[in-house]
Amino acid sequence: MIDIAKEFRVSLPAWIDDELAEGPAVLPSREDRMRLVHRLADRNWREGNGGPFAALVAERESGRIVSVGVNVVLTTGVSVAHAEVLALGLAQTATGSWDLGGKGMPGHELVVNWRPCVQCYGATMWSGVRGLVVAGEGPELEEITTFDEGPVREDWAEQFEERGIQVVSDVLRDEALAVFRAYREAVDAGGVDVYNARGGSE
Amino acid sequence: MIDIAKEFRVSLPAWIDDELAEGPAVLPSREDRMRLVHRLADRNWREGNGGPFAALVAERESGRIVSVGVNVVLTTGVSVAHAEVLALGLAQTATGSWDLGGKGMPGHELVVNWRPCVQCYGATMWSGVRGLVVAGEGPELEEITTFDEGPVREDWAEQFEERGIQVVSDVLRDEALAVFRAYREAVDAGGVDVYNARGGSE
Repeated sequence: MIDIAKEFRVSLPAWIDDELAEGPAVLPSREDRMRLVHRLADRNWREGNGGPFAALVAERESGRIVSVGVNVVLTTGVSVAHAEVLALGLAQTATGSWDLGGKGMPGHELVVNWRPCVQCYGATMWSGVRGLVVAGEGPELEEITTFDEGPVREDWAEQFEERGIQVVSDVLRDEALAVFRAYREAVDAGGVDVYNARGGSE
Repeated sequence: MIDIAKEFRVSLPAWIDDELAEGPAVLPSREDRMRLVHRLADRNWREGNGGPFAALVAERESGRIVSVGVNVVLTTGVSVAHAEVLALGLAQTATGSWDLGGKGMPGHELVVNWRPCVQCYGATMWSGVRGLVVAGEGPELEEITTFDEGPVREDWAEQFEERGIQVVSDVLRDEALAVFRAYREAVDAGGVDVYNARGGSE
């Protein structure tokens, strides 16, 4: 007989409640949505939950916040638990559907503080969101934080567009880099456990 | 105040217990590991949990089965809940670590009934497994089942190898295709709900 675990849970950290208690439930401006993402990303690494990454799902037109996510790999012990996976899974839990673009639903967008890693790129593609909003793209994330983002194709944005997912970039880009730099400074100062898949070094 | 869902769960379906009760807890042969994956994949679509996909994590040398996964997108309502994500997350739950390749651990491998989609490609990369075993790769999966696997780079296997993840392909390939064909015949006969991210058609 094979005896194995049958279930795992993915949860937001308790401190999220503080952050959400303060904010309005609707953020009509895209910059305000990204500002919330940056705030959660910055707090996330300081709290020790995982990397400096956060995301949220909003109704595109109204700006109603449907879910938020942060990277909780360290606290859940599950490597898939990146910010985007939490935000998407929690939005689907809230709406009751694995397809956030289903008939009769408002269009949803995922807001993230950088272009998703290869795993979350795919997770976004299968989620039903109609839009992806990122603070930026490019090598800066990997250069500053040392996280491996994985091999993503050059035509990544076109591939989204072909599937009806609109990509918007460069929303509060400098603010994203400021969060990454603060994280890196703490790592260099020895105050943070860095986690990452090993880079073939062993 | 922003009021949102804080947690979601990912669970194996109850019928998994029947399948695991019958089998030995250790499968030293790679073919036997894949045979179990094929059996779970075939039952999964027939039970209505999701697509014809299954996976397991085994200790590479001993063949001890650490976890299994099936695609439960339809029953969990969470689009990330592909077979690989369940197998990896449950293995990490069982071992107590987000890193299946951590110090002092036996090497783990992920066994899947086709090359993972782009999301699960990334999930595999970040999981700490030292090996990926697939029944096959190539366009047959998409052609037969009509599932979109997403844009994966041509050098996908080399990218794994560079990160210390060994790739083994063509293990019971014909048997994988037989499962996909049985699924497709049921779809064409109108007996199965197909789900997939929309292909940019709306």
